[in-house]
Amino acid sequence: MSTVYNTATSLDGFIADQDNSLEWLFSVAGAEPASEGGEAIDEVEDFIAKAGAIVMGSTTYEWIVEYEGGKPWPYRARTWVLTHRELPRIDGDLVFASADTDQELRDLHADMVAAADGRDVWVVGGGRLAADLARLGLLDEVVVSVAPVSLGGGAPLLDGRVRLRALEAGLKGAFACLRYEVVRD
Amino acid sequence: MSTVYNTATSLDGFIADQDNSLEWLFSVAGAEPASEGGEAIDEVEDFIAKAGAIVMGSTTYEWIVEYEGGKPWPYRARTWVLTHRELPRIDGDLVFASADTDQELRDLHADMVAAADGRDVWVVGGGRLAADLARLGLLDEVVVSVAPVSLGGGAPLLDGRVRLRALEAGLKGAFACLRYEVVRD
Repeated sequence: MSTVYNTATSLDGFIADQDNSLEWLFSVAGAEPASEGGEAIDEVEDFIAKAGAIVMGSTTYEWIVEYEGGKPWPYRARTWVLTHRELPRIDGDLVFASADTDQELRDLHADMVAAADGRDVWVVGGGRLAADLARLGLLDEVVVSVAPVSLGGGAPLLDGRVRLRALEAGLKGAFACLRYEVVRD
Repeated sequence: MSTVYNTATSLDGFIADQDNSLEWLFSVAGAEPASEGGEAIDEVEDFIAKAGAIVMGSTTYEWIVEYEGGKPWPYRARTWVLTHRELPRIDGDLVFASADTDQELRDLHADMVAAADGRDVWVVGGGRLAADLARLGLLDEVVVSVAPVSLGGGAPLLDGRVRLRALEAGLKGAFACLRYEVVRD
């Protein structure tokens, strides 16, 4: 099993724009021919369906809740949401938690690995969480779908220095898909 | 002929780190087997040798002057350096200029196109210059070599919103190489 940070990003390394919107991302994905963008999106859904545990920051969670418009949580795997705030709750296997110290983040990761039961742990954002996991040696892979746009600012893809090793790069429809192994120092 | 922004970047979209250093880039390139990184670097040199005119900001210029350690300017093509400061001068076909308004940047670009005489105009940094050229409809392509590292901060790859269309993506040694056409609004 692996812990994988899987996200879409702009070419200049932002996972949301300065208004915290993903409109720039969906305008690209929506413009794809069904045989290309559709497949790429299905593939991401397949990946997430295979995840044994999911973790995300509160901004990512709020965005999904808003995007899904009150429907139940879309993922079957238990999902940890890191937050210090009261967040709107929807139906689903959701755990609201916080991890303020390295030890708390290690403990949380151990809980997720146990819940994943041999399947992967998926980090879907944000960039601070992913960088913290990498710093602690708990992140194995980074998989990014690079949207063909620069934003000039926004929420960072990886909020820290992380050394990587490129495993794959290729086009999938309008996106460049890059896969990396995290290099442990 | 095309106007091409060709640069190396970290995965998170920085062309220099917060100390204005490129050490992170050369530590990756230097660790490449000669048959991979060497070729990739030769290829970039070949590309630059084919350029008919080159333009860069003062930071990029100062970095090359320091890196080349007092040797003559390494490129044959006439090179415009955009600056408001007195910069160290070295031997070479160098033009120091400033372009503070859109019209001045248009005029400068027209001068470069004339000097290139049918060959390409190369923009080698920084991200504000490239984004300004794109905004004015003067940039045709963006070619990035993505180093396998995130920096968490530094000089931006593209300092503004630019719509692109992916043409190529693939690995060259340790780098992911992405080529884009700029979409004109």
